[in-house]
Amino acid sequence: MDRILTKDCLQKIGAKVLIKGWVNNVRSYGKLAFADIRDRSGLIQVVGGPDLGDLKIESVVEIIGLIRSRDAKYFNDKLITGKIEIEAESINVLEKAAELPFDLHQPDLNLSLPILLDNRALSLRNKKIQDVFKIQATIVEAFRNYLSAQDFTEIFIPTIVAGSTEGGSEVFPVDYFGYQAYLAQSPQLYKQVLTSIFERVFTVAHAYRAEPSVTTRHLTEYVGLDVEMGFINDWLDIVKMADGVVKAIFKAVSEKHQDILDEYGVTIPKTVKDTPVIKLKDALELIYKRTGRDIRNEPDMDPEGEREICRWALEEFGSDLVFITHFYTKKRAWYSYADPKNPDETLTMDLIGCGVEWISGGQRINNYDQLQEKIKSRGQDPADFEIPYGQTFKYGMPPEGGFAIGLERITQNILGLENVRQASLFPRDMERIDNRLSVSGKKIVKIKKDGKVSKTSKK
Amino acid sequence: MDRILTKDCLQKIGAKVLIKGWVNNVRSYGKLAFADIRDRSGLIQVVGGPDLGDLKIESVVEIIGLIRSRDAKYFNDKLITGKIEIEAESINVLEKAAELPFDLHQPDLNLSLPILLDNRALSLRNKKIQDVFKIQATIVEAFRNYLSAQDFTEIFIPTIVAGSTEGGSEVFPVDYFGYQAYLAQSPQLYKQVLTSIFERVFTVAHAYRAEPSVTTRHLTEYVGLDVEMGFINDWLDIVKMADGVVKAIFKAVSEKHQDILDEYGVTIPKTVKDTPVIKLKDALELIYKRTGRDIRNEPDMDPEGEREICRWALEEFGSDLVFITHFYTKKRAWYSYADPKNPDETLTMDLIGCGVEWISGGQRINNYDQLQEKIKSRGQDPADFEIPYGQTFKYGMPPEGGFAIGLERITQNILGLENVRQASLFPRDMERIDNRLSVSGKKIVKIKKDGKVSKTSKK
Repeated sequence: MDRILTKDCLQKIGAKVLIKGWVNNVRSYGKLAFADIRDRSGLIQVVGGPDLGDLKIESVVEIIGLIRSRDAKYFNDKLITGKIEIEAESINVLEKAAELPFDLHQPDLNLSLPILLDNRALSLRNKKIQDVFKIQATIVEAFRNYLSAQDFTEIFIPTIVAGSTEGGSEVFPVDYFGYQAYLAQSPQLYKQVLTSIFERVFTVAHAYRAEPSVTTRHLTEYVGLDVEMGFINDWLDIVKMADGVVKAIFKAVSEKHQDILDEYGVTIPKTVKDTPVIKLKDALELIYKRTGRDIRNEPDMDPEGEREICRWALEEFGSDLVFITHFYTKKRAWYSYADPKNPDETLTMDLIGCGVEWISGGQRINNYDQLQEKIKSRGQDPADFEIPYGQTFKYGMPPEGGFAIGLERITQNILGLENVRQASLFPRDMERIDNRLSVSGKKIVKIKKDGKVSKTSKK
Repeated sequence: MDRILTKDCLQKIGAKVLIKGWVNNVRSYGKLAFADIRDRSGLIQVVGGPDLGDLKIESVVEIIGLIRSRDAKYFNDKLITGKIEIEAESINVLEKAAELPFDLHQPDLNLSLPILLDNRALSLRNKKIQDVFKIQATIVEAFRNYLSAQDFTEIFIPTIVAGSTEGGSEVFPVDYFGYQAYLAQSPQLYKQVLTSIFERVFTVAHAYRAEPSVTTRHLTEYVGLDVEMGFINDWLDIVKMADGVVKAIFKAVSEKHQDILDEYGVTIPKTVKDTPVIKLKDALELIYKRTGRDIRNEPDMDPEGEREICRWALEEFGSDLVFITHFYTKKRAWYSYADPKNPDETLTMDLIGCGVEWISGGQRINNYDQLQEKIKSRGQDPADFEIPYGQTFKYGMPPEGGFAIGLERITQNILGLENVRQASLFPRDMERIDNRLSVSGKKIVKIKKDGKVSKTSKK
């Protein structure tokens, strides 16, 4: 007999079927017992005798039985299969589960994040937690579909790099056959290179930041949804593309996962045809005018400023989204394109939504000599960037730019999650690689400047 | 005036248009000159005066001109736009290219692979080289589409891991805030974990092998197309799924890229409805019978054996593909499921095509106690695998298995490329991270066993 998914039982009332899944819960009343069986399509109630009542939660079972309608008074509106049940004829335990350390199938697992992560293989079985990653898969699918339809080519680029992409010391060192290598901080330089090959490219890329901080907003390994496009007419082409991508993601998520949005009690951010765009300088001025808080001389926008600008965008334009543009040159990455009208500002943007950043991007310098000077001005050696980055510009690069969306960040934002770790299947941070490093980590041997070994301890 | 792509000029004969692209080549005859302009859609011929003739190859230009039909005697059958040309009215150089180090636009760049890689940003502009990665994007798209249609969920899993997945020493060490971490050798353990969450999962994952060898078949960083599925009825379900995926990839590539297959002079491998399946032991016996070469006591199939089995499959079944199954337990990964009928053999398979391996997979052990014993028997500590791998099995895991396709490998196989590096945009190997390590690499400080520092040289 072929297995049938629980959701397909609705079309088979009166039939004898084989279902397979996990025991989600059991309610035993002596001779009579009920169990909900879970598979990838949902849950179904099974009715049986003591052998059903004896099943351990999370055991893997196959059950043969008859599908029948429930009495109307026993309908369960919360289940797709709430009007039917299966009368068990035979129960076969494929794998018996151990005793659970906590009650897994509450709608909300009321446990601290460290406990949830210590038990990640188990906590992911909770429906609400699992649903985060269904949304995440849809976000990526919508991202790719939107860009593929606009003639973008998907690229696959390496994460082991010879130098630090964005400057700074927040890189993870890799021992590469005795040579010093690093994990890429972003696919930035490679996606630019490939713009000179395919004009329009996107990539779903892993990126790494060795930030020695444990905040609710940082992962050491994350997934970037990266876009880069050449032959822009105007740098606002980049803003429009980012706007289109994020709206396509919203559309796909709300069409496919309204149930999950309801489960999390959230709504997709309000958007309007023309998402408001405001220069950083004007935004800072506006904040002063609206609130009296004077951050007009600050070099960047602060979190409270982002929230205030979002309030303004919602009041004035009915939009939860707003682009802030023209970030100051001194605060933006070295490859950013300076505004020809005012070289202290760059043709860059952040998309802010509901008070937090969603997307970051801008136009890039595409002239070889300018890039060489820029790299030198940051105290770096252009020779370190020549293959393949410098070469790209030496032999003709069109005006271009792009943007990046942090996958975990956008998942967090859409679902209103408190911590970005909740939006990563197996989050990496300073304190954890699956297990807590303080529990299972092995310290690395270090050499002090005087040549002495500082750590040799291996746990 | 809006830019028009060169391929769209066909529909605009008689119109004045703006094209943008790179100067692919120039033929100058004093007052009269011809240039082919390249954009992401192809090439178009432009006719003009000395200013056109003076353009540097690979410079980025925008040209306004009139589209006109060519005289029939000047038709170029090799170009989609071969029956038209643009009469230049104005030429604007956006970025001037430096002198090229070699003639870039030969159909075949007759240069050694190291030279091509030393100039990767440039060599990728060659059409034939670039086309490899158009095929590659289609392979991944077809892989995802096939699996999404069969209810698989896409997963995003980390590459920084705390231990070596597959055992062995061929891992890259990462300094993770002073703790020892590694780059994942494969997404194997995580995709298994997630089979207990979503039942059917796939991922496009980076994986890393620190093999200290420089062959034509190995990259240190590669992309794996990984699949895992739970609740299999029979382990041959995995074989069928792998067979379906590879045929879907073939279909997509031949429908979309017949021109590239022609350019490379290759045809898609011949397939039949029921791809032949043969046990390793029977395959070794068959080779002995067919050729007299006796490798019946070898623990594994050798490359000449793979070629011979492919000859057999083609002769007997008309198939370029053949599954070899039941590899010996001692030679297969520790998580492989032993055949209940013969524990010396595993329920595993390799898909061999045209004499080389394309896919590898099989059923996995899904019982907690068996796994614990297996890990111990390989001299490892089960505690190192407990979070999240061990937990998965402790709390109920269905019968399951999966397979992996190396993206660069399948690209290489389809196009008949000599070296797998040709199928990677920026290949990493023992000798190169973009630039040659012998030229630009920085050596790492090492400690010898006696505590002395062996290298302090920094180039």
